[in-house]
Amino acid sequence: MEPRITLVTLGVVDLEHALRFYRDGLGWVPSPASVAGDVAFFQAGGLVVALWSREALADDARLPRDDGWGAVALAHNVASREAVDAVVAEMVAAGGRLLKAPAATDWGGHSGYVADPDGQPWEIAHNPFWPLQADGTVRLPS
Amino acid sequence: MEPRITLVTLGVVDLEHALRFYRDGLGWVPSPASVAGDVAFFQAGGLVVALWSREALADDARLPRDDGWGAVALAHNVASREAVDAVVAEMVAAGGRLLKAPAATDWGGHSGYVADPDGQPWEIAHNPFWPLQADGTVRLPS
Repeated sequence: MEPRITLVTLGVVDLEHALRFYRDGLGWVPSPASVAGDVAFFQAGGLVVALWSREALADDARLPRDDGWGAVALAHNVASREAVDAVVAEMVAAGGRLLKAPAATDWGGHSGYVADPDGQPWEIAHNPFWPLQADGTVRLPS
Repeated sequence: MEPRITLVTLGVVDLEHALRFYRDGLGWVPSPASVAGDVAFFQAGGLVVALWSREALADDARLPRDDGWGAVALAHNVASREAVDAVVAEMVAAGGRLLKAPAATDWGGHSGYVADPDGQPWEIAHNPFWPLQADGTVRLPS
């Protein structure tokens, strides 16, 4: 697994409330890849910052909906489904705890979740609609 | 405030335990900027990933040492002390909650902390030893 974070997702209680801070207050411009009422994406240099329902994120990562895990998920995108399987296996072999075995996602990709020794969730994902750039980053439509 | 994350710090219970996962298990190479027994830094593309004591991070951000805040802090580095003050003021005006007013730090920089509406802590920092690149990222010594 390369030392690379593709996306930082902040689990939020209320998306509109969060957007009033990030979009209206700070002037961040959501990408057209955002889905109104569901998820907001921001290009942040080579990184993507996402705002998504805390409950949806917990459910996606197979984590409890309580406060114990911190509502931040880090994503590491890779170039193929096979690479998802390989990185998840590598993380588990390194001492990570499998949260969700790699599987097809409803957004057309393939992903799994592994918690690090402190419980921090990492999503390992292949998203065919967000191809990796030569430098390993992703670029949202702008 | 630009949409930019400089550094993702993962608060850990035991640094050596965390290093057994990230360094020994996954093969990530700590930067020489790391401080043995205290903090490990990894260059992750244009981002820096840090492993640091959860309690030290909580104390630094003026947050309780319990589980409620998730043990992840996002940092946004800027080019001057004045820019730290300006971005902290902007975040508070946008509805953020001031955790720590900008002040000189014991590592020779200047930083403050603001929580977003969901309580996610952001550190706004000027680090004269980590100059910003033209693209807004920082590069650790390698």
